[in-house]
Amino acid sequence: MSSVVYLNGDFLPRSEAKLSVDERGFFFGDGVYEVTRAVDGHLFESGRHMKRLARGLRELRLEPAVSLADIESISLDLLKRNDITQGEGTVYLQITRGAAPRTHHFPPAGTPCTVFLSAQRFTVPHDKRATGVAVVTYPDIRWSRCDIKTVNLLAAVMAKQSAVDHDVFEALFVRESAVTEGSHTNVFGVIDGELRTYPASNLILGGVTRDVVLELARELGFPVSETPFHIHHLAELQECFLTGTTTDVMPVVQVDGQVVGSGKPGRMTMALYEALAARLYAAVPAGTR
Amino acid sequence: MSSVVYLNGDFLPRSEAKLSVDERGFFFGDGVYEVTRAVDGHLFESGRHMKRLARGLRELRLEPAVSLADIESISLDLLKRNDITQGEGTVYLQITRGAAPRTHHFPPAGTPCTVFLSAQRFTVPHDKRATGVAVVTYPDIRWSRCDIKTVNLLAAVMAKQSAVDHDVFEALFVRESAVTEGSHTNVFGVIDGELRTYPASNLILGGVTRDVVLELARELGFPVSETPFHIHHLAELQECFLTGTTTDVMPVVQVDGQVVGSGKPGRMTMALYEALAARLYAAVPAGTR
Repeated sequence: MSSVVYLNGDFLPRSEAKLSVDERGFFFGDGVYEVTRAVDGHLFESGRHMKRLARGLRELRLEPAVSLADIESISLDLLKRNDITQGEGTVYLQITRGAAPRTHHFPPAGTPCTVFLSAQRFTVPHDKRATGVAVVTYPDIRWSRCDIKTVNLLAAVMAKQSAVDHDVFEALFVRESAVTEGSHTNVFGVIDGELRTYPASNLILGGVTRDVVLELARELGFPVSETPFHIHHLAELQECFLTGTTTDVMPVVQVDGQVVGSGKPGRMTMALYEALAARLYAAVPAGTR
Repeated sequence: MSSVVYLNGDFLPRSEAKLSVDERGFFFGDGVYEVTRAVDGHLFESGRHMKRLARGLRELRLEPAVSLADIESISLDLLKRNDITQGEGTVYLQITRGAAPRTHHFPPAGTPCTVFLSAQRFTVPHDKRATGVAVVTYPDIRWSRCDIKTVNLLAAVMAKQSAVDHDVFEALFVRESAVTEGSHTNVFGVIDGELRTYPASNLILGGVTRDVVLELARELGFPVSETPFHIHHLAELQECFLTGTTTDVMPVVQVDGQVVGSGKPGRMTMALYEALAARLYAAVPAGTR
């Protein structure tokens, strides 16, 4: 691949960016990450991503040499270096506790964190949004600190693979009958005209797009409640959708083979997508996205 | 470091062994590992380690190019190449789903697994065993597939660091008041003369040394039950100990500042250590360990 990435102070070709085998990301998944959307070279909701990142670093006691401002500036630089200043892209960031002889506890003081960033083009799945997608459920076997965006992602890997095996878009985690979130998305349902989503807590990752959508729903005057819907509510679901940095608002029209509502993208769902798109593409001339 | 490691078919100096930044071990912790004890160039209980590894590979649907026999032979080779054919050592093995563009679901068919092995000298903590060690408890925040030895180890990292912060040897995970296991050890307690340990299940890693010790306890005629002890049992604990590949049988004499039994390594504990040592050093001439 000819793309340029950032690793520990250097910008270099992806193929030349190498990690030590003593990397704690490799041994323990001892780190956090973020994926930020870029439109025409601008980062969308960067402030919220950086706030969440700062919280994750604090919770895990990670102290990278780069500041949040450095990260934003490296992100923008990477978009330029990879010629992603027009159209859609994403910036991936990962910070781990660095490379050191393997011990479960933290490495010696002064061990530098590993800081990795990459930028890539991104194709918006407009076709899927037009029809809506199918999903399956998967037991929420994750730990109880889902609120930290760590790279301990094996449960998400297995869930998403289950979606692929079922030839559907996403897997929804279910914990004690409640739908918590998707493998890499948050999930909303509409019951009795009320928009519901699992409450922000230690059991879900508080998605940036989830927060924006909650804000937009209130602006649009939709009844909103941070209350989960359960698998026994499937028959009552009028609408269902996923949110995420690369998912935006994605209508769900089938869960475990059961049709949701009319089987088409819902009214509130699409209104929320349009409101999100208006923010996302605020600076983009109409007709060019 | 001048040691020689094995990475994807090559034996090379540790400093030259490098991972791709697209390594799924780094992005997702998408892999399993094993640590095997080596005494005088022989692997201890290799069969049990390989059986557990095979199960983990199957559960995660990992299909490395190397067979279990290959892994044993690479392990022995590494011990020789690093001149660890006399005395104590460990072999570390990690297998991940390889390097591929980041997607939660599995990479394209044919993406080779990453296979990494290293061998290192090991110093047996005889001094700590003589006095016994102190431990602290830590909430068991882990996922519900603790039975797979994956590198999603962040909870273990945070727990062990808590032990270091408290200047003690290990942290014991507590789930709904039951002591499940240590951050990288299993744990046993003696109550009313009965040896107890958390039952083999999805909530603990079934340690190789745990299995051997259960076997030895039965051979020695000790009453044994795979029943957990709880934090409210601490005052009743007559003995307590940890087991593990590098821990052997390690007496615990203090939990969260509370003295266990007489405050000295217990009788059953030390009998089990001696029985384990007899197996571990079966081929070693007396007086040379």
